[in-house]
Amino acid sequence: MNGAESLARTLVAGGVNVCFTNPGTSEMHFVAALDKVDGIRCVLGLFEGVVTGAADGYWRMADRPAATLLHLGPGLGNGLANLHNARKASSGIVNIVGEHATYHIKHDAPLTSDIEGIARPVSAWVRTSPNARAIAADGAAAIAAARTPPGQIATLILPADTAWNEADGVATVAPMAARARVGDDVIARCATVLRSGEPAMLMLTDRAVRADGLALAGRIATATGARIIAQGSNARIQRGAGRVPIERLPYPVDQALAVLKDVRHLILVGAKAPVAFFAYPDKPSVLTPDGCQMHQLCTLAEDSIAALEALADAVGAKKGSEVVQPAGRPALPTGALTPDTLAAALGALLPEGAIVADESVTTGRGFFKQTAGAPPHDWLNNMGGSIGLGMPLATGAAIACPDRKVVCLEGDGSGMYTVQALWTQARESLNVTTVVFANRTYAILRHELTNVRAGTPGRKAADMLDINRPDLDWVALARGMGVPATRATTAEDFNKQFASSLSTQGPTLIEAVL
Amino acid sequence: MNGAESLARTLVAGGVNVCFTNPGTSEMHFVAALDKVDGIRCVLGLFEGVVTGAADGYWRMADRPAATLLHLGPGLGNGLANLHNARKASSGIVNIVGEHATYHIKHDAPLTSDIEGIARPVSAWVRTSPNARAIAADGAAAIAAARTPPGQIATLILPADTAWNEADGVATVAPMAARARVGDDVIARCATVLRSGEPAMLMLTDRAVRADGLALAGRIATATGARIIAQGSNARIQRGAGRVPIERLPYPVDQALAVLKDVRHLILVGAKAPVAFFAYPDKPSVLTPDGCQMHQLCTLAEDSIAALEALADAVGAKKGSEVVQPAGRPALPTGALTPDTLAAALGALLPEGAIVADESVTTGRGFFKQTAGAPPHDWLNNMGGSIGLGMPLATGAAIACPDRKVVCLEGDGSGMYTVQALWTQARESLNVTTVVFANRTYAILRHELTNVRAGTPGRKAADMLDINRPDLDWVALARGMGVPATRATTAEDFNKQFASSLSTQGPTLIEAVL
Repeated sequence: MNGAESLARTLVAGGVNVCFTNPGTSEMHFVAALDKVDGIRCVLGLFEGVVTGAADGYWRMADRPAATLLHLGPGLGNGLANLHNARKASSGIVNIVGEHATYHIKHDAPLTSDIEGIARPVSAWVRTSPNARAIAADGAAAIAAARTPPGQIATLILPADTAWNEADGVATVAPMAARARVGDDVIARCATVLRSGEPAMLMLTDRAVRADGLALAGRIATATGARIIAQGSNARIQRGAGRVPIERLPYPVDQALAVLKDVRHLILVGAKAPVAFFAYPDKPSVLTPDGCQMHQLCTLAEDSIAALEALADAVGAKKGSEVVQPAGRPALPTGALTPDTLAAALGALLPEGAIVADESVTTGRGFFKQTAGAPPHDWLNNMGGSIGLGMPLATGAAIACPDRKVVCLEGDGSGMYTVQALWTQARESLNVTTVVFANRTYAILRHELTNVRAGTPGRKAADMLDINRPDLDWVALARGMGVPATRATTAEDFNKQFASSLSTQGPTLIEAVL
Repeated sequence: MNGAESLARTLVAGGVNVCFTNPGTSEMHFVAALDKVDGIRCVLGLFEGVVTGAADGYWRMADRPAATLLHLGPGLGNGLANLHNARKASSGIVNIVGEHATYHIKHDAPLTSDIEGIARPVSAWVRTSPNARAIAADGAAAIAAARTPPGQIATLILPADTAWNEADGVATVAPMAARARVGDDVIARCATVLRSGEPAMLMLTDRAVRADGLALAGRIATATGARIIAQGSNARIQRGAGRVPIERLPYPVDQALAVLKDVRHLILVGAKAPVAFFAYPDKPSVLTPDGCQMHQLCTLAEDSIAALEALADAVGAKKGSEVVQPAGRPALPTGALTPDTLAAALGALLPEGAIVADESVTTGRGFFKQTAGAPPHDWLNNMGGSIGLGMPLATGAAIACPDRKVVCLEGDGSGMYTVQALWTQARESLNVTTVVFANRTYAILRHELTNVRAGTPGRKAADMLDINRPDLDWVALARGMGVPATRATTAEDFNKQFASSLSTQGPTLIEAVL
């Protein structure tokens, strides 16, 4: 077998069963190998940001890496923004990036570039395979790197001749490493803090905001009076009726400061010490109050569930003592379509088992509250702040969980960066309902212009913040890529279209005109 | 004035009169400064690949740099593929990339990334401005770097506090450097080669394939019997009736080898020694025959026009002796819409002064020949091989040359990478006719799969090469972004729609179904 086939078979042996692809000439042997090898599904994206964002969504729902297939440095470049987001989400991804044949690189052909240089800022592991006999072992190392807790981006660069030359066969992939356990001293220290009676808060993320982690945190809260909160953004929160409810630290600095102002002890459960998303001339970067002590229960790479279990035991928290979210939905809204009525409609209709890919930016700030009592569902945030993740994330989540409904909540500004994801959803008949919030502006920038005290925008600045002139027609865009679409201009419209979409198999899009 | 304003005013002082933007929060002060400062036009793109590709097109037509405004590392990442293309085209661009406030970077907020690391693979010059008082001088240095012959990419990173803190004022921008002159010894050596009687060829690019350079090369050819040819891809060829006609080195390796096989002396006029675009298992990387001697008349950074003038004098070439292209257009085609009938229609209808942004990939291989005798026009190629340049390039060219018609020849696969360019064309009422060749496949990859001997594609591989299932509806996509569009399925349809589009102001799109 050639190098390409040895790599493809190694991927399958390592449990990598999906490859999101946007290949070019230098990847043709790998494409041919994927064709030959069973056990790996190929999903084409028409733009690389779709490919990398989908791999992020796949990891979050499947808890194992997908591969991507990208064409040389520029193809990787096109995928970079969503790799940045995936890196911040600690998602494991195996990027396979084609390269010229080893002997061709020195000729500086048009597509020659510094691929490793482009890869490094977003990758924990980068390697250019030197020859066909090395590629299987390099692939195995890439998988191991991607699966290293909490999940990492591994970029394997595949020169064309390493793909087409003769190889030795499949490499063995190391089993997935268990997460490290936190020491008893750390547990004891955090327990002491919690028993001190001083105002304490647990800040959670990653596995700790899935159902099991939240149940443990909830019973610790019951036993000690500590508050619990999730990071501002999280890879996957499990929430809804019957689960321990959790709010996220708000994005606006003043709101975040208010939430944290009385906290004397902040116990970080995988979470980072909270800082402002951006700096503002008159606001602090650090969000915790002076004198607040930080205690790290576990790092992101450590076993937060085991740590919470140990901490729950140490503080005498009782199983079943956690306060869970009662079931309850808002009434179906009527009247104008606004962020508030949209929030109510989502809360009223979100189906059990839904996966929410949330890139609603400003429009969605009220969605979390109104959907709290909906049936159990998963909620995925953008962790890196680079907009254009929502629709690719939804695409990858739908590939990972074909039996669940994915609801993608997307700003119209954000959606345009990776609009090509809709085509992949159509091709693969993915079960995704996309709701685009058509406020025809980068609304967040209008707030931020004020927040950073940059003054009132004149016409030229306003033109950089608004995306009207012309208005985007999302119904046409979606149909242009084979996704059935409708437009809602009232709450009643939206209720009806959203309900209809939820009961339809395959992708649909609703343009919610605000 | 603050740092942002000092930078904006320095840009204007340095002749940078257009800024292609996709800003975020950290760039709000710079947006406010652009608002205040006259003499710089702001053009919003909904995706950064549009922004950077437009800056490339602007440079090619205006011969001076535009600025881009990009949001942190991920925004730069989204622009990277077209910056790669611009770098290969030696286009001068001043990238302004926002960054967190200097004191905020250490907190590793979600959008924090290694911006310099992302910039370096595509930039000749990278600098993070340390404070507000430095930013004007840094901006002046960036402009000087961008204008350094033959044109370079300069990336200036602008931490938010360097924008909002108080600055000293505008910096002086060094005048644009003249290109270096080639030494007399080089001219004499090349003249000797040309007078030797051995088969010689001049390979031209950059300024040498504009009208003046071609006239000089043409008369050298007349005087010496040397052949002339252009590189495979060129930033801007001036061609058409009355100009010295030139062919480009073909992309397929076998055809390129055939063109070069009898050449004993290849005189490189800014051009690179010809190499294959990709490596293939059974084909050479170097395209010149064994024993062919290379002679570099001038580098890309040197003054190729002066060098050709001196060489023409040295070989006794007479002004007016060059053979020029006679006027002549093919007849309007009839019948099926094919690459051949499309070529004829373009040749029959291309208007005087047209700027052709060519990303027609496989469909367009016959276009050059059929348009040779059309009225004078400019032809722009993708120099870096990363598809997704065409529509942004057309956008930037149209901003640079508002009085000319831009014709964008675009593959359907290529067009999807930066489809958002259509919206910018609509917003700015740009005079661009886009023709999308809807063959519903990455046609080039079907050829390349064979060329690299990767076998016959099975279903899974075929799905990675074809972009049907579902077909893209380009008429809907264009209308969704505010660009009027039509669909042509016969040559007669196309003739009519293309003629109508050429006589219409503003952007239009024709989906040419093949």
